Amino acid sequence: MTLTQAAAGARTGAAPESGGPVERGMLEDLAAASRILVDQGVFDAAGHFSMRHPHHPDRFLMSRSLAPALVTADDIMEFDLDAEPCDARGRSGFLERFIHSEIYRRRPDVMAVAHSHSAAVIPFGLVGTPLRATYHNAAFLAAGVNVFDIREKFGTTDIVVNAPDKGAALAEVLADKSVVLLRAHGMVAVGPTVPDTVFRAIFTEVSARVQLQAALLGGPMAALDAEEGRLADAVNLATVARSWDLWKRRVTD
Amino acid sequence: MTLTQAAAGARTGAAPESGGPVERGMLEDLAAASRILVDQGVFDAAGHFSMRHPHHPDRFLMSRSLAPALVTADDIMEFDLDAEPCDARGRSGFLERFIHSEIYRRRPDVMAVAHSHSAAVIPFGLVGTPLRATYHNAAFLAAGVNVFDIREKFGTTDIVVNAPDKGAALAEVLADKSVVLLRAHGMVAVGPTVPDTVFRAIFTEVSARVQLQAALLGGPMAALDAEEGRLADAVNLATVARSWDLWKRRVTD
Amino acid sequence: MTLTQAAAGARTGAAPESGGPVERGMLEDLAAASRILVDQGVFDAAGHFSMRHPHHPDRFLMSRSLAPALVTADDIMEFDLDAEPCDARGRSGFLERFIHSEIYRRRPDVMAVAHSHSAAVIPFGLVGTPLRATYHNAAFLAAGVNVFDIREKFGTTDIVVNAPDKGAALAEVLADKSVVLLRAHGMVAVGPTVPDTVFRAIFTEVSARVQLQAALLGGPMAALDAEEGRLADAVNLATVARSWDLWKRRVTD
Amino acid sequence: MTLTQAAAGARTGAAPESGGPVERGMLEDLAAASRILVDQGVFDAAGHFSMRHPHHPDRFLMSRSLAPALVTADDIMEFDLDAEPCDARGRSGFLERFIHSEIYRRRPDVMAVAHSHSAAVIPFGLVGTPLRATYHNAAFLAAGVNVFDIREKFGTTDIVVNAPDKGAALAEVLADKSVVLLRAHGMVAVGPTVPDTVFRAIFTEVSARVQLQAALLGGPMAALDAEEGRLADAVNLATVARSWDLWKRRVTD
Repeated sequence: MTLTQAAAGARTGAAPESGGPVERGMLEDLAAASRILVDQGVFDAAGHFSMRHPHHPDRFLMSRSLAPALVTADDIMEFDLDAEPCDARGRSGFLERFIHSEIYRRRPDVMAVAHSHSAAVIPFGLVGTPLRATYHNAAFLAAGVNVFDIREKFGTTDIVVNAPDKGAALAEVLADKSVVLLRAHGMVAVGPTVPDTVFRAIFTEVSARVQLQAALLGGPMAALDAEEGRLADAVNLATVARSWDLWKRRVTD
Repeated sequence: MTLTQAAAGARTGAAPESGGPVERGMLEDLAAASRILVDQGVFDAAGHFSMRHPHHPDRFLMSRSLAPALVTADDIMEFDLDAEPCDARGRSGFLERFIHSEIYRRRPDVMAVAHSHSAAVIPFGLVGTPLRATYHNAAFLAAGVNVFDIREKFGTTDIVVNAPDKGAALAEVLADKSVVLLRAHGMVAVGPTVPDTVFRAIFTEVSARVQLQAALLGGPMAALDAEEGRLADAVNLATVARSWDLWKRRVTD
Repeated sequence: MTLTQAAAGARTGAAPESGGPVERGMLEDLAAASRILVDQGVFDAAGHFSMRHPHHPDRFLMSRSLAPALVTADDIMEFDLDAEPCDARGRSGFLERFIHSEIYRRRPDVMAVAHSHSAAVIPFGLVGTPLRATYHNAAFLAAGVNVFDIREKFGTTDIVVNAPDKGAALAEVLADKSVVLLRAHGMVAVGPTVPDTVFRAIFTEVSARVQLQAALLGGPMAALDAEEGRLADAVNLATVARSWDLWKRRVTD
Repeated sequence: MTLTQAAAGARTGAAPESGGPVERGMLEDLAAASRILVDQGVFDAAGHFSMRHPHHPDRFLMSRSLAPALVTADDIMEFDLDAEPCDARGRSGFLERFIHSEIYRRRPDVMAVAHSHSAAVIPFGLVGTPLRATYHNAAFLAAGVNVFDIREKFGTTDIVVNAPDKGAALAEVLADKSVVLLRAHGMVAVGPTVPDTVFRAIFTEVSARVQLQAALLGGPMAALDAEEGRLADAVNLATVARSWDLWKRRVTD
């Protein structure tokens, strides 16, 4: 805990202790993840991306409330698993940071979380068609994708996942999968690293477009089955650096 | 009324009095709204955006007839609710400025109006499928969207809303809603501020694309209901600045 | 006929006489038309645009065979209505310049011709669905659009309109309309000026996209009827300069 | 075989002999092909392009494993038909270079190979709809397009064509055609030159988009028949330089 952070804690009377300093390059990668997802058409003026604190599993790092195209390392805040900021310094977090905190709480394997209003994905959260893995880059979808309908537990709401219980309900519907859809809202992708999670957010969107087109052509669809998906996902995770390097280069000077 | 304006009034013999000078920043935001809607794919080489005069409810401000990508604060003209210019200085207004004047006349809550030929929206004005709120950013659509068919009152026309009676008929079909479709023409979005109205114009277009895709997947569509829409719209209006700042930055240096 | 042109005629023994020098600004507009149609997504690496010679109705002006994105005023060649170059100077014309020559021969009202492989339009030349005027900017389509199938007169070919008789057959199917589709090939748009013809090529493409989407929503489609189309087209022709100025600015420095 | 290459061979104990130096301009064209296919929306962060060695039919040239947007002439490696590098110098080839080696082995007429995850094409590898030649630029499709389903010979896999026997099975399904689809994976295009193969990869993608739209309009589809396709393909191959020059210019300074 730095002096500044201690002071901030003293000011609020309740700020959680920091998990410790984080290497600058990691923060820059985390910030780049937001800009990459804008550049790749997954994030619009909204959308947020977080990573678990590398030295403290009960903390996570996430931009202040800001359009993702504008996020830099200096905008990253630290939160505990109640989504309380460790050192707010006057900055506001996203209303929906509970999506992130409650997934980190329930999924120790998850190291990064992306939430988007991915336009090609939203239709699949509105109707009964399950999202499938249309090709190997979307292999992680073959394990299945659930849909979180906030009405089921919370009745009529403003749709926003703005409290711990809503985040917890979402995390339960996500279960052990890589992606969950939010009815009339968007999706969440998770993964074991920042680049893997960026990769999954991008190919969920691409695969949704491909699936709609295949469905329009009609007839049975030979998407990846669960075991093909498991095998292909391992290849993707082993080779994601090639894509990540390109994507990152496009959003950094 | 400035001396120049008085002179112009004298020249035409009938120019209405100005509502008074408007802060430069407001005019720049109004001009930026046109450029933002081009940048976001809602306006093409046509499309126009206006705001009610901040100091005079019976005046409104709107660009001279000009491609919206080119509009700057210096192109803004002032009109009364008969769509007569207060100080034309040789500039021509849009033929369809009556869309704006008649809405301002009937809807005191409306402070800004956008008219576009939004490509994904036009199909919904041609067939019987009602536009719905496919996700929270399009919450304002959950209150319902009517379609104005100029044939009903005016028979065979050139489609252009180029007179007060046509604008009035359109404003009546808009009723108390945020958006109205114009058959074989486009749409109009209204709102309580310039950024809110830009937000609504953008997400009407995005939601129309999502709705078509959901419809193609088939089955019942779990769009926002009216009460969810009302609640989610309040959140949108409270957080629109985050999007507006980004959009504006993209079209200003 | 300039000295250079006379010399070229002497060399080939048969070069037709030029219609005379053309104002530089006209040639620059003609070249810009090609670049505009690339910029607006109507032309790809192919596509060609011509205008009738302003001083000689039996001559027309058209780029040498060159990707339309690269066309400048210096690439413009002059042809007679047999599509013979007046002054080739080693330059090759497009194989399909007979599309242009035979339309100019049969349609004295036509002053400009565009031929594209407009991606959203091609589907309508492959199936039996007639192209309609989905909104006022596409009003010129309300008069009807025929489909030219080269097989009907010429049997199995390479599809290319590379001879006078093929151009003549195409011009007959065009009839007195503004647009004709070419089965498994593309489309041709014509008009009374260069900007009008650019406008029509662009909005044929846009309207085709809108029509497909409206058809997918299902139900009767309230497109413009013939008389609405005639009236709206007159407004478009009167206001096309606003669009043209913007489009041209985007492709010139 | 250069001294460096001999040394590399000595180090690995098994490096095949080089087919000899290749003109710099050829390597630059080969590298440009990868960047062109990114620029034209056919390659994403993956995708690879190769050419047969101009002086040795049993060797081919292909980038090291690298995002295609970044490939330059210096990234080109040489392989034999077992996909063994002649001079790796620490560089890694693509896992799927066996797609290329086994096609070169079986198809002496093929001088270049492209493998993409072309988004509009993938749907046709998932369902039973055959890809057709919707217009003359896609004429090469009229000869027919087969679908390679890796499950048929290899059961459940990770989908990757990462071994000679998988490449050989793919090459057999390609047969004597220009394009083959890979179920849940992508496509491969081949041709007699680098520009021709780029052209085919691009227009396979474009034609797939057109075909889906035509199918959605409904009714019989008047695509090119086999003989029209054969005739039109000859015209395309004779005029591809016009497109190639433009595409290359867009990705070089």
